[in-house]
Amino acid sequence: MRPSGRAADQLRDIRITRGYTKHAEGSVLVEFGDTKVICTASLERSVPRWLKGMGQGWVTAEYGMLPRATGDRTGREAARGRQGGRTLEIQRLIGRSLRAAVDLKMLGDNTITIDCDVIQADGGTRTASITGGCVALVDCIRHMQRNKLIRNDPFKQLIGSISVGMYNGNPVLDLDYPEDSNAETDMNVVMTEKGGFIEIQGTAEGEPFDQAQMDAMMQLAKQGIDEILTIQRQALEAP
Amino acid sequence: MRPSGRAADQLRDIRITRGYTKHAEGSVLVEFGDTKVICTASLERSVPRWLKGMGQGWVTAEYGMLPRATGDRTGREAARGRQGGRTLEIQRLIGRSLRAAVDLKMLGDNTITIDCDVIQADGGTRTASITGGCVALVDCIRHMQRNKLIRNDPFKQLIGSISVGMYNGNPVLDLDYPEDSNAETDMNVVMTEKGGFIEIQGTAEGEPFDQAQMDAMMQLAKQGIDEILTIQRQALEAP
Amino acid sequence: MRPSGRAADQLRDIRITRGYTKHAEGSVLVEFGDTKVICTASLERSVPRWLKGMGQGWVTAEYGMLPRATGDRTGREAARGRQGGRTLEIQRLIGRSLRAAVDLKMLGDNTITIDCDVIQADGGTRTASITGGCVALVDCIRHMQRNKLIRNDPFKQLIGSISVGMYNGNPVLDLDYPEDSNAETDMNVVMTEKGGFIEIQGTAEGEPFDQAQMDAMMQLAKQGIDEILTIQRQALEAP
Amino acid sequence: MRPSGRAADQLRDIRITRGYTKHAEGSVLVEFGDTKVICTASLERSVPRWLKGMGQGWVTAEYGMLPRATGDRTGREAARGRQGGRTLEIQRLIGRSLRAAVDLKMLGDNTITIDCDVIQADGGTRTASITGGCVALVDCIRHMQRNKLIRNDPFKQLIGSISVGMYNGNPVLDLDYPEDSNAETDMNVVMTEKGGFIEIQGTAEGEPFDQAQMDAMMQLAKQGIDEILTIQRQALEAP
Amino acid sequence: MRPSGRAADQLRDIRITRGYTKHAEGSVLVEFGDTKVICTASLERSVPRWLKGMGQGWVTAEYGMLPRATGDRTGREAARGRQGGRTLEIQRLIGRSLRAAVDLKMLGDNTITIDCDVIQADGGTRTASITGGCVALVDCIRHMQRNKLIRNDPFKQLIGSISVGMYNGNPVLDLDYPEDSNAETDMNVVMTEKGGFIEIQGTAEGEPFDQAQMDAMMQLAKQGIDEILTIQRQALEAP
Amino acid sequence: MRPSGRAADQLRDIRITRGYTKHAEGSVLVEFGDTKVICTASLERSVPRWLKGMGQGWVTAEYGMLPRATGDRTGREAARGRQGGRTLEIQRLIGRSLRAAVDLKMLGDNTITIDCDVIQADGGTRTASITGGCVALVDCIRHMQRNKLIRNDPFKQLIGSISVGMYNGNPVLDLDYPEDSNAETDMNVVMTEKGGFIEIQGTAEGEPFDQAQMDAMMQLAKQGIDEILTIQRQALEAP
Repeated sequence: MRPSGRAADQLRDIRITRGYTKHAEGSVLVEFGDTKVICTASLERSVPRWLKGMGQGWVTAEYGMLPRATGDRTGREAARGRQGGRTLEIQRLIGRSLRAAVDLKMLGDNTITIDCDVIQADGGTRTASITGGCVALVDCIRHMQRNKLIRNDPFKQLIGSISVGMYNGNPVLDLDYPEDSNAETDMNVVMTEKGGFIEIQGTAEGEPFDQAQMDAMMQLAKQGIDEILTIQRQALEAP
Repeated sequence: MRPSGRAADQLRDIRITRGYTKHAEGSVLVEFGDTKVICTASLERSVPRWLKGMGQGWVTAEYGMLPRATGDRTGREAARGRQGGRTLEIQRLIGRSLRAAVDLKMLGDNTITIDCDVIQADGGTRTASITGGCVALVDCIRHMQRNKLIRNDPFKQLIGSISVGMYNGNPVLDLDYPEDSNAETDMNVVMTEKGGFIEIQGTAEGEPFDQAQMDAMMQLAKQGIDEILTIQRQALEAP
Repeated sequence: MRPSGRAADQLRDIRITRGYTKHAEGSVLVEFGDTKVICTASLERSVPRWLKGMGQGWVTAEYGMLPRATGDRTGREAARGRQGGRTLEIQRLIGRSLRAAVDLKMLGDNTITIDCDVIQADGGTRTASITGGCVALVDCIRHMQRNKLIRNDPFKQLIGSISVGMYNGNPVLDLDYPEDSNAETDMNVVMTEKGGFIEIQGTAEGEPFDQAQMDAMMQLAKQGIDEILTIQRQALEAP
Repeated sequence: MRPSGRAADQLRDIRITRGYTKHAEGSVLVEFGDTKVICTASLERSVPRWLKGMGQGWVTAEYGMLPRATGDRTGREAARGRQGGRTLEIQRLIGRSLRAAVDLKMLGDNTITIDCDVIQADGGTRTASITGGCVALVDCIRHMQRNKLIRNDPFKQLIGSISVGMYNGNPVLDLDYPEDSNAETDMNVVMTEKGGFIEIQGTAEGEPFDQAQMDAMMQLAKQGIDEILTIQRQALEAP
Repeated sequence: MRPSGRAADQLRDIRITRGYTKHAEGSVLVEFGDTKVICTASLERSVPRWLKGMGQGWVTAEYGMLPRATGDRTGREAARGRQGGRTLEIQRLIGRSLRAAVDLKMLGDNTITIDCDVIQADGGTRTASITGGCVALVDCIRHMQRNKLIRNDPFKQLIGSISVGMYNGNPVLDLDYPEDSNAETDMNVVMTEKGGFIEIQGTAEGEPFDQAQMDAMMQLAKQGIDEILTIQRQALEAP
Repeated sequence: MRPSGRAADQLRDIRITRGYTKHAEGSVLVEFGDTKVICTASLERSVPRWLKGMGQGWVTAEYGMLPRATGDRTGREAARGRQGGRTLEIQRLIGRSLRAAVDLKMLGDNTITIDCDVIQADGGTRTASITGGCVALVDCIRHMQRNKLIRNDPFKQLIGSISVGMYNGNPVLDLDYPEDSNAETDMNVVMTEKGGFIEIQGTAEGEPFDQAQMDAMMQLAKQGIDEILTIQRQALEAP
């Protein structure tokens, strides 16, 4: 039995709210149950120095948590004067994942920065960030097209992400915090609409996992990402 | 005429939503028109080292803005490795202001940290932070009483805050961003329920202001804070 | 009775020594009683990047204290690796105040940096810094004119500053350290020669202050700044 | 064809030299072809503050590269004032992986720090670090036993690691730099002697990978780690 | 001929003013011609953590320059967020030199920090700092004795310092800035009252120096430090 | 008697291995007994900003120690976020010393960075770094000539370095760690092939040293550097 009473292959209630704040070219509130992340996509009409003259654009991501997004207050990274290893690891993952959604050459000399800020954490903040960030990214590209900032459509495919894990010896989908903090294995999977893998990151916190468990987790992940891609598509159908 | 069409003495639509996130002892979303700030109050059962053994508690504040809370994206302070001067100045102001709401001796060996994170900025983020932060602080104190963490009530009085300024030669109340960025003078006022002043910070960005203008601005501020205190009280009446 | 025996409206002995060090374009030792600050004005023949091509110059300020300017040694900010919030707040105040002394457009593509370094602290370091810094700024502008670096005179007006406060229930002028550390209210006022206000920053450390107290403090501040402007003018009359 | 002429399932020449430097409790030079990493294990007779009184020890890792370990000189992280995201990500991976080699409770109030410093880089530095670091860790534990610092044997199992990837459409084992920088997919796998998975981190840099490719890569990884474990065991058999 | 017209073995005008600021236990303004340094000695009734329980005290030094102590403005180290290599090198030299003046065991559990802040630089700031710092140190020790904070006298001997160099092919004493910036060799010498050497740091900026030049410079240094020790003694004779 | 049993004027076993790593233009492992330093010379086809357009090149150095190069583990400077004073002092010394080996004007618009990374420390790391770094520098210049990146030969002379000191009242050559940590005086000397001095840095850690001791130490240093220059020349004769 899962703490939330969910079935092993059951996602939390997932909601995507577009146009959540008014300034960003793309702005999404994504909720995976009690995990809530604001994802904004910000357009800058230039590229990082190391890409100048290469004839391509860039997509990057930054990640943060409000200090009291967590059960105990976490010290503010700006006050401590550096981003922690976990933060850097997550924002590198989000950036890599979302670059798979676009054709960087067609993006022209533009940079899109995806900011994912967790306002309430309950497990799965990185998969929620990738899922919501992708929708914000699409809105940003639509903004560029509406305003004739690009001629072609650099959008290639939606990217969805979910976590799976071994909890109490069973493979489960979309771990919440009580599961995440007690799971034997935690695995984050990122996939494209066409069923390709972009990232797989599995960690045995306790017992190592075997091939059969790996296969069972992968099966759950594929099914979960299928559902997530549907939710992303529905969110993007609204005007 | 004000850009928003408001009368000179008219506040923006001000809303205070309690219980906005689930982990913090006090958690408020405060909206001054399009300015939206999440204010959380976090209880820690200890005091800073320099207060150890002094027989009193502490109230402090931290302030931040999501990178795309603003019209153009602002670099993330955690990534730059330091909090800017504006941030430090604002969080010092919030902390000083809210310490006037409590009797630190009655707080016991406890620290309450008020985090004010701007998710959308349209002028007046520091006055919104003080106003919303005070409500979160009250909720935190109520939590301490409900859980018998303190015997007495350290709460002294509500603290409200508003900005006033000289815009196009006229005194106006509660400046939004289009006014704020063009005002001759910008003044932030913090007051208690009993009508005492806690802070006055007035800056002539363009023309200096004279005593008559000062008096007119102070008059507007008192009236505005009266209304704000009423909104705070109404928010706190709900269970 | 004030600890120093001064009357409520009595300034400390204020002295301004020009040409204090030899390298800077303007160099002043300003003394407000035992508070001693070296203020230098340094000319740079360029403007910050964000002002390039805007057809105007810039005036900015930095503030520091020698570690043993204070009763107990204060850790060196350079050694701790960051300027504290108090330092940043004060140098932002000095910069804003002194920009009111000049017409930035007439300054051309030049930056003047005012460094205020406290060598002995006894209360009122920020008001002494603004007062002395303004004289150094004038000397720097005179240097530019003598050397034909500018054609017009960008100097608009002298800027003077003083603190006032409520001490033992009475309004007093120019607080020294024993008063400052026990005052109910501390207020810093910055004014122009023409009687306009540039900055008012009042803080109730203990009891809130009311409108009558505010008016009494403002009255003292105006009188004190009048005397300070006279001292600045006398210092500048010497060759 | 692979640039090195190796078969798809062929490891580079792997060498493990124990006792490489004289001060550390465990000190290993590990070579995966031209990739050379010094791995030292340092014993500290205490635990981090957050583990005090928990009745267990700790194993952690730090990672670095000499500036000219790479083809072009990489700026020194100590000079830039912060460890980069890649460094933090790698050292977190090494630490997590090697904690699976020991029973932390049996380690007592001791911390073992594994320092992995790359003196020459040619792809696969993180898998070489885990592989060599595990041997250094064993030597450190043997030192503790020889010196009666622990009574029991906290060593649980050897940990080996290798990279696999999709290169020119084919699954290959143990990528060197020319392969790594052009691979479609790069995957790092960490396994125990008993065949359990500790970590799987796969990233599609170019084309997404499908389940069949995933399975092929996993198959190569298992075979490669088998060989690596044999090399580790042989190295540890020497006195 | 030297730019200043001085003879090769002639010191600049050297002045030592005790009691220069009011808070520090020892406070000296030292002038070597136009080089002016404020040296304060601050007493702290404890020792650094790594000396706790070792039965001895500590003497350390910190060094800084006001931004406009130099001909061109130097960026403030506190603003840049780190002390430069030159600063660290100098303050380590000052600390090592002044520790030779005291018996650390007789100092008890006390730390004396010597702050040397250059308010005007014209060459020789480190030798002026050691020379003035030693006088401030003596005043601090006298303060401790007067206030019965120590029973014995930990003072061992005066420490004096001067620079010598090869300028235009000739050995010269006490280089000022025009000499220093063009010298072939610059050498700083620190000696005790009894004629022992504490530090010799010679650097050939241009041509290497030979043994004969070395001997000539050492001869000048001994003579110069003799004079400096006399000036220190005279300064300390005043009450 | 010396702890190592060496005669007073006896160097440790000194070895220089060229071509130690494969990427750098010059790469040397230098061993002074158990002290082992990797010295690489990296060519960059540009000059620092402050040298642009000056018609000369630059030689600079950086220094580091692997955390467990020492008897106890030393915290990693990259993790602490700053290079310590000792590190900065040493790398400034290495850079100054090695600039005496080349004619910077003949170097053209090129920068050579010498990285000295200590993998095992047993005293004398700075003199080993200068000695080995000079050989790496020569290899880098040879690389530039072979590849026609410069027409002339900017190499002027070999630079050698050794430490001397007073140990148990006797002058000794090339101190190892047990001597270094107990020496009364420690002196580092840097000389050219032609017998000129580049740097002399002598520090009395315990008793001051007198002129006779100074002369004796200098005599030892000259003799030791003679031997070192021979070892450098022999190493460079190999192809």
